[in-house]
Amino acid sequence: MLLSSLTELLGGTLKGQDLEIIGASTLEEAAPTDIAFLANRKYRDQAMTTRAGAVIVQEPLERDVPQIITGNPYLYFARVLHLLYPEKPVEPGISPMAWVHPDALVHEEARIYPHVYVGAGARVSEKAVIHPGCFVGDGACVGEHTVLNPNVVVYDGCSIGRHCIIHAGVVIGSDGFGFAWDGQRHFKVPQKGVVIVGDHVEIGSNCTIDRAALTSTRIGSDVKMDNLVQIGHNVVVGDHTIIVAQTGISGSARIGSGVVLAGQCGVAGHITIGDGVTAAGRTGIATDIPPGKVISGFPSMDHTHWLRVQKVYHDLPDLLKRVRELERKVKDLGED
Amino acid sequence: MLLSSLTELLGGTLKGQDLEIIGASTLEEAAPTDIAFLANRKYRDQAMTTRAGAVIVQEPLERDVPQIITGNPYLYFARVLHLLYPEKPVEPGISPMAWVHPDALVHEEARIYPHVYVGAGARVSEKAVIHPGCFVGDGACVGEHTVLNPNVVVYDGCSIGRHCIIHAGVVIGSDGFGFAWDGQRHFKVPQKGVVIVGDHVEIGSNCTIDRAALTSTRIGSDVKMDNLVQIGHNVVVGDHTIIVAQTGISGSARIGSGVVLAGQCGVAGHITIGDGVTAAGRTGIATDIPPGKVISGFPSMDHTHWLRVQKVYHDLPDLLKRVRELERKVKDLGED
Amino acid sequence: MLLSSLTELLGGTLKGQDLEIIGASTLEEAAPTDIAFLANRKYRDQAMTTRAGAVIVQEPLERDVPQIITGNPYLYFARVLHLLYPEKPVEPGISPMAWVHPDALVHEEARIYPHVYVGAGARVSEKAVIHPGCFVGDGACVGEHTVLNPNVVVYDGCSIGRHCIIHAGVVIGSDGFGFAWDGQRHFKVPQKGVVIVGDHVEIGSNCTIDRAALTSTRIGSDVKMDNLVQIGHNVVVGDHTIIVAQTGISGSARIGSGVVLAGQCGVAGHITIGDGVTAAGRTGIATDIPPGKVISGFPSMDHTHWLRVQKVYHDLPDLLKRVRELERKVKDLGED
Repeated sequence: MLLSSLTELLGGTLKGQDLEIIGASTLEEAAPTDIAFLANRKYRDQAMTTRAGAVIVQEPLERDVPQIITGNPYLYFARVLHLLYPEKPVEPGISPMAWVHPDALVHEEARIYPHVYVGAGARVSEKAVIHPGCFVGDGACVGEHTVLNPNVVVYDGCSIGRHCIIHAGVVIGSDGFGFAWDGQRHFKVPQKGVVIVGDHVEIGSNCTIDRAALTSTRIGSDVKMDNLVQIGHNVVVGDHTIIVAQTGISGSARIGSGVVLAGQCGVAGHITIGDGVTAAGRTGIATDIPPGKVISGFPSMDHTHWLRVQKVYHDLPDLLKRVRELERKVKDLGED
Repeated sequence: MLLSSLTELLGGTLKGQDLEIIGASTLEEAAPTDIAFLANRKYRDQAMTTRAGAVIVQEPLERDVPQIITGNPYLYFARVLHLLYPEKPVEPGISPMAWVHPDALVHEEARIYPHVYVGAGARVSEKAVIHPGCFVGDGACVGEHTVLNPNVVVYDGCSIGRHCIIHAGVVIGSDGFGFAWDGQRHFKVPQKGVVIVGDHVEIGSNCTIDRAALTSTRIGSDVKMDNLVQIGHNVVVGDHTIIVAQTGISGSARIGSGVVLAGQCGVAGHITIGDGVTAAGRTGIATDIPPGKVISGFPSMDHTHWLRVQKVYHDLPDLLKRVRELERKVKDLGED
Repeated sequence: MLLSSLTELLGGTLKGQDLEIIGASTLEEAAPTDIAFLANRKYRDQAMTTRAGAVIVQEPLERDVPQIITGNPYLYFARVLHLLYPEKPVEPGISPMAWVHPDALVHEEARIYPHVYVGAGARVSEKAVIHPGCFVGDGACVGEHTVLNPNVVVYDGCSIGRHCIIHAGVVIGSDGFGFAWDGQRHFKVPQKGVVIVGDHVEIGSNCTIDRAALTSTRIGSDVKMDNLVQIGHNVVVGDHTIIVAQTGISGSARIGSGVVLAGQCGVAGHITIGDGVTAAGRTGIATDIPPGKVISGFPSMDHTHWLRVQKVYHDLPDLLKRVRELERKVKDLGED
């Protein structure tokens, strides 16, 4: 692909000579037939020495290498990757080694791999791909162009929208965690609701999303979830929200739109996190958070405040020493 | 179902007129044919405006809506749900698309779905249900009325009691984490024990429970585990204990009965947590804890103490300022 | 097996009379025909009263029981276990209930269980064992003597070395977490790299290891990973490194050789952890760490410093009181 074809299709300004590129790689590992990108200043030195045939940059490099200049090199690079490595087309069909209930509706353009189970009344839509070992329960729905990677489990009645990517081992619709002590043992509160996942959602491997007790656990559209995330029953997650690996959200919490929860965060039950909130890694959120806040720590606080707290925290032994010294001096002063 | 039939079957006092209800729902989403419940004060306003045909309450609402008054509305509601939505009966039989070892013992009243593997000498008891994609290893046991949801793995020799619900993707009996450095590499300590799970246990999706090195990892009866919980080898968990999502328990820890470990707790190896201990979310427990304690923080401390610590912690920048001010003043006093 | 045969094969000094042992167990549960070991002082009392026929110890017990004295009783015991309970030999063959692509290369000495899927161009090597429900994607490789326990997923193009043990539910090669905001939604950055796992690696159940964006996520040889660990894309883990349960490593982090990350640690993206670093449980690592450090806390600090910080932290309410008292006294002094 010519660099000039890229700028024609995707915009950006070509600086330097035109060139045909064959692949895409990192600055460090690129060959002269590859295109690479610079998005993080940390790697600027690599950009000055890379063997890549061309580099996508925000600011022109003072170097005689063909460059595409664009406002968002990472996004641009992602688009180049889609052009260079298009998705394999879906080969439709149902494997004879899959088990599909006669009352399930599988679109003729969908693909069902071996060792898949599709229950009664389930619906698998056009161009959906259900990889080996998946379970699609009775009455469950998989939308158009959605991919279930191997060993995904969608419990009865849950639905996943269109153009979603669900990674291996994800469980959608297991029972919410609800018990009532009856004086002798924990009596199970039946979990009769469902999970509803929007469109363009990606869910990382081995995540777990519980069904609602009565209504629905709802994951908005364009939500991106990393691996091993836990979503409790009745949780609502707004559109465009990002949830990084190993974060857990307790039951009935409401997460706004455009929220970012970094890795290993925890969210208490029944609280509300406003739109556009950003929580740094490991934040423990136990109270409602107004929209737009940037928070850290446990219990969570404003990120800038947390930075100041951490500084004092780190020097606590020194602070104790200073207090002891003061006590000594004040005692001396009092005795004068 | 008539409200009067409910009070006849389940107790409680009917206030207001009798009524037939068809379903059950939340205060917020209930229709006039639904029954709802109020257990959390936070939702009292909703109870005053709900469209529900009837409400289960602890204290009578000053409102002209039929009410059932009972000491534990949540438990009562759970019982109503069991009445309104009874479990589907188990249809016995072994799918021809399952693989069952000729030496396995599968009760004729059990159900084995497609894509299941049952090993030599394994036992699947009466009314047990093994969903698609499950693995029941050689000599493993699944008790009466126990349900393995899809893709559960029970390694060789492990056993699960009666009336358990094991959610999708759970792994029971993987090797404990034991290695001995031999000077050149980590030499594997063979894990020859098993896991024994009691009766009426529920285990959330994608939990992992390791087999003991030599003896058994033991999960008591009526234990309830949320999703993504990790249990190390040789751990013992007492009856009625609750373990919330993403908590991890290290090898050889002993957890008492009636313990509650909230979400994202961590328990160090070889320690003992007494009966009735409650640990708040994210507690990191590194020492033995006497029975009945309520603990928080990392390293864990009495919850009430932790609350006071957190308050000072949050205001550390202010405390530092006060110490600086004192230093200035004391210096001035000394120079007078 | 005679104790004298053990010392002949494995070294160590026999103290007391020779004896035939049949099994191996813990000090607490051993029968007179079992051998047990003492490696942790905590259990010394048990060693003095155990019914075991023989005990492996570092220091001789003052007790009339046959003992094998060796520098590392735990390692010695592990070797004894391998002798007493040898692995079952692999019975080669491909189950007719597995689905193996005609272009896959499965060694005739490998074992493929029912409900397995092996994709085009995949390679399963000599003596490899692929348990039920596993997925080996197109072009993926499983090395000699490597065992995939049930329901392991190896995505297309990923490779696992020789003599590895991959526990149930592990996902290797799911997409790294990469998105670029395009002004309207999160645009997926295609993840075109792979995962490469070395030799003698053990990976605990339900771990997730993401494929690189472009190049490879690399797990060195003799790496041991506990359950529910998350490894982001482009991470490099050095040889002999130990990663305990529920730890998460963010994208592009580089972990050295011989590192120990205890349970529930978190590692930020794009940082470097030097060889031989040890991080205590729950350490949150956000910056580069030089080789050999022992660290704790969040943000991480030297472990010894952290111990002192924690002490002051625990007594913060008292410190506040002392500052208040000082303020009162200084005020009084000023008014004199």
